[in-house]
Amino acid sequence: MSTRDEVIDVDVGGHRLAATLVTPATQMPGVLFLHGWGGNRSQYVARARQVAALGCVCLTVSFRGHEATQELKESVTRDDSLQDVVAAFDTLAMHHLVDPSSIAVVGTSYGGYLGSILSSMRPVRWLALRAPAIYKDSEWTTPKSALRKMQDLDRYRRQRIAPADNHALAACAAFRGDVLVVESGRDTMIPHEVIENYREALKSSRSLTYRVLDEADHALSDPACSEAYTTLLVNWLTEMVAQHRTPDVDAQKLVRQGMKAKAGA
Amino acid sequence: MSTRDEVIDVDVGGHRLAATLVTPATQMPGVLFLHGWGGNRSQYVARARQVAALGCVCLTVSFRGHEATQELKESVTRDDSLQDVVAAFDTLAMHHLVDPSSIAVVGTSYGGYLGSILSSMRPVRWLALRAPAIYKDSEWTTPKSALRKMQDLDRYRRQRIAPADNHALAACAAFRGDVLVVESGRDTMIPHEVIENYREALKSSRSLTYRVLDEADHALSDPACSEAYTTLLVNWLTEMVAQHRTPDVDAQKLVRQGMKAKAGA
Repeated sequence: MSTRDEVIDVDVGGHRLAATLVTPATQMPGVLFLHGWGGNRSQYVARARQVAALGCVCLTVSFRGHEATQELKESVTRDDSLQDVVAAFDTLAMHHLVDPSSIAVVGTSYGGYLGSILSSMRPVRWLALRAPAIYKDSEWTTPKSALRKMQDLDRYRRQRIAPADNHALAACAAFRGDVLVVESGRDTMIPHEVIENYREALKSSRSLTYRVLDEADHALSDPACSEAYTTLLVNWLTEMVAQHRTPDVDAQKLVRQGMKAKAGA
Repeated sequence: MSTRDEVIDVDVGGHRLAATLVTPATQMPGVLFLHGWGGNRSQYVARARQVAALGCVCLTVSFRGHEATQELKESVTRDDSLQDVVAAFDTLAMHHLVDPSSIAVVGTSYGGYLGSILSSMRPVRWLALRAPAIYKDSEWTTPKSALRKMQDLDRYRRQRIAPADNHALAACAAFRGDVLVVESGRDTMIPHEVIENYREALKSSRSLTYRVLDEADHALSDPACSEAYTTLLVNWLTEMVAQHRTPDVDAQKLVRQGMKAKAGA
């Protein structure tokens, strides 16, 4: 097992002692949760705890215009939000417990759209999209809240859209990791055609898990649907993380056998 | 596996986003290295790396009067050093990766003396003493550098000393954890009688491992002796940590089996 050194101060009654902290360089997967428009990090903390219990470090973040900065909601653009998402990814990737090459992005609606684009900017290994939204590429720095009317999104979201014509779909087309796509059967915001466009674009992904929650609306307002989604997500991440861990598990087994042999000597 | 939440800020171009970081509450043993008089933390970093590779968090600290604060060396008292040692223990025990009930203290000479007393003040689980020094209880707040002459230590260290007559030995007599005692066969500072006094005092310890490095002087100035000590220490800690881990290993096995079962479902 590799280790890392860190020089720290020990405070003792006003004095500072130089100290070296040496820790095992244990690394685990990271999982970034991206909320939908109007949501915030709090919605994902319970899910994050379940996922962390699998042995992952989770980060849920509130975008600008949400939670403490509601006053910015009408002026926030997709460009702002994408910056937020990239900064959150980088924060997670730099965490000392996180293996930066093993990061899952879990996005809902607007967060799914942003997560898709993020996958073209940062090394996303696993991508979970629940009811991912979609927007035209134009008006990139126009406030997000103005897009629905300006881009006639209700109409746009019924169309067949080629990856070449949309940043998010282009990113999906280039994505080579594992993907989970979850559709709500009673979604009035994100019609089935949007999900089809994403699935079509994702044809180069290493694996695809596609599920429909038949009774669910866009927001998963029925607690049973919300729970069903959590179960889907946790099972999928469990499978992904278990595959990823196999070599480490073997290494750990060897270390433990070595320890037992030494202990018996 | 239990988890812990932490609210953090994500910085993005001057904005701060609220975020929740959820990490698995992984805990491992801690190992505190206490150097001898005139030594410093740097002497223990290589050993600390080997021990950290077993899956432990290690801390090596330079006491007041050493390394950056050499100018205090003539005025530092045992009381000052014991405060340093307690603060270092507390720093290690509070580290988020450390199980505060599973801390080993590894002390050399003056550090062994201080580590023995520390075991009566903090929950030390494992105690490794290499060539532990000993002093009379009197003159507790007199500069340590004056004690050799003032206490006629060369004579004191040839005597049979009962635990009731010495703080460090009393702490050893009360110690219920596992102990490693390492003696240097050619030690002109710490004669065999001192080691005998420590061994006699430690009769209530859960286990005792006593070894003599025949060719070694007090400072282990021969690299081969220094290496032999490292091997002894690492093997002993490996055995201690492996015993300690057994329940966790079983728990980890169950988690992994559960993950495999889910992945196959």
